[in-house]
Amino acid sequence: MTTLATPSTTLSTPPSGAVAPPVAPEILTRAAGLVGPALATAVDRLDPALRVPVEHHLRGGGKRVRAALVLLSAAAVGADEQVGVVGAVAIELVHNYSLVHDDIIDGDRERRHQPTVWAEFGVGPAIVAGDALAALATQVLLEDPTPERVQAARRLAGANQAMIAGQAADMAYETRDQVTVAECLAMEQGKTGALLSCAASLGAVLAGGPPASVHALSDYGDHLGIAFQAVDDLLGIWGDPAVTGKPVGADLLAHKKALPVAAAMAVGGAVADELQRILGGDLTEADVARATTLIEDCGARAEVTAIADTHLELALGALDRTPLQPSAKDELLAVAHYVTARDR
Amino acid sequence: MTTLATPSTTLSTPPSGAVAPPVAPEILTRAAGLVGPALATAVDRLDPALRVPVEHHLRGGGKRVRAALVLLSAAAVGADEQVGVVGAVAIELVHNYSLVHDDIIDGDRERRHQPTVWAEFGVGPAIVAGDALAALATQVLLEDPTPERVQAARRLAGANQAMIAGQAADMAYETRDQVTVAECLAMEQGKTGALLSCAASLGAVLAGGPPASVHALSDYGDHLGIAFQAVDDLLGIWGDPAVTGKPVGADLLAHKKALPVAAAMAVGGAVADELQRILGGDLTEADVARATTLIEDCGARAEVTAIADTHLELALGALDRTPLQPSAKDELLAVAHYVTARDR
Repeated sequence: MTTLATPSTTLSTPPSGAVAPPVAPEILTRAAGLVGPALATAVDRLDPALRVPVEHHLRGGGKRVRAALVLLSAAAVGADEQVGVVGAVAIELVHNYSLVHDDIIDGDRERRHQPTVWAEFGVGPAIVAGDALAALATQVLLEDPTPERVQAARRLAGANQAMIAGQAADMAYETRDQVTVAECLAMEQGKTGALLSCAASLGAVLAGGPPASVHALSDYGDHLGIAFQAVDDLLGIWGDPAVTGKPVGADLLAHKKALPVAAAMAVGGAVADELQRILGGDLTEADVARATTLIEDCGARAEVTAIADTHLELALGALDRTPLQPSAKDELLAVAHYVTARDR
Repeated sequence: MTTLATPSTTLSTPPSGAVAPPVAPEILTRAAGLVGPALATAVDRLDPALRVPVEHHLRGGGKRVRAALVLLSAAAVGADEQVGVVGAVAIELVHNYSLVHDDIIDGDRERRHQPTVWAEFGVGPAIVAGDALAALATQVLLEDPTPERVQAARRLAGANQAMIAGQAADMAYETRDQVTVAECLAMEQGKTGALLSCAASLGAVLAGGPPASVHALSDYGDHLGIAFQAVDDLLGIWGDPAVTGKPVGADLLAHKKALPVAAAMAVGGAVADELQRILGGDLTEADVARATTLIEDCGARAEVTAIADTHLELALGALDRTPLQPSAKDELLAVAHYVTARDR
């Protein structure tokens, strides 16, 4: 349920000095071109009262990373990318319904440089706009219910359910003093990994690809989701405000129970006590600086960096477990590096 | 998206004097017995963070009218009621997700004599609890994707979309001065008719019943939904506060754009002008009495009564269009009379 923000460099570029902005993998442009019109056609079927807020939301754009993964996963098992388009549309519908609902839940008034649906149209219209997008995803897949599309609809419903569970866990953790690293990882796997995993395998499912390839592609997406979230959590504390558009230590200020805090609390002792005291109330600039130092000095930053690296490696490694069409595989590697870039 | 309230008499009983409360059709008890455990099993699959608010909501009960229609529609084409259970579970999941979301939208703090989900757990948890119920409906039908279940999932997604459009129209009408009778009927067809229509045909779909029977049962549910809503709108103004639990003229006080007001406004002239003036602001007891008189005297009450009667007749008539198993047909008739009882 997290937006994949534009990175300024890729993981392989050292995060220092004046680096050129990374070039987005070409598949993202191709995905926007292939999936955009199909998505617009799907949304055209909505009742006008729903279409207006939905089109407002979609005008914000988005990088179509999930759509790109669906197309690449079709190509990876030897099919034409076109085979994945219906799945890419369904994935984008589910992703965007979750964004519309999340913005209500988080009270966020702006997304992609425009007012969120609830801020523009009200909470009620935003709830039903999200509901309509979710229902439309199932309709799009089942309107021509081939066995492959039925399997795709089934997998997407499961991924949606896992994503919702991740969001529910995230909300539940907000009221808790402490969250373990394992709980945090499971929550992030649900919130982000489940839909990325579904996206990365859905094209192969629609193409009737071999189960071993579907499984490997699904694992790739799963690990990529966790790696992305771990990087996102690092940037939530150490991200450059000029790049992230957020204040220094944004996640600490927001009392977000993300991986770095969970890892630091797991150290226990004086570090955990002091951190808990600081994070227990409103944070001054000095508090943010002190908490950041505590988290870094106890090794938590390094631990989360290792988690990100490990899951990126696992994602890339999953692609070696099964024969995949080479150019599609290369593009899957490029997307993985792009969305886990560490100094975006 | 409306709860089918318990009627105190059936349509065939004159709405006067001390009448005995109607006996609920036996199928409602049977449906609760057959579907309740299956629904609980489905909900057991939810993540604990979601299960708690969902189980809270479901503890409120509900009369399982839609579940009953699914079972009867399986029996109507000669199948065992058991064949409809999976569809009844899916329909109840969709119905209940819509209730959870509607309660947020309407700001209702109580349903079925207990706090609504948002009132008890917060708006965020209520949004995701509803989302989880909606996704679960698709999961339940597609976990064993026989052609019949796939068709059922497809129809349910379409009905869900129509229900959402009805809810969106209802919200949009709140900000308008005037709504035509046709617009009001279309909105109510979506909000209530679509899911009843789906319920009344879903069992036949799951049983692989003949298309003509599926179509007739679907029409029965569609018209029944409109008849129910028309009766509900009449009760919103003329309902007995002792029975409805709402004040005299509840819908007028709430400025609800329901059929009686739409029909009165369509008369135009002095009646429409005076009514619009009264309904434009907060209503005194005298205003409610005057508006009620205006609506009655211009013939709007009679018109809405005729709409209810017509659509009940159309619902019953649809069942004569195709050969149906006689005892199931009798029970469908009984359910129709029960849910359109006029002085509940």
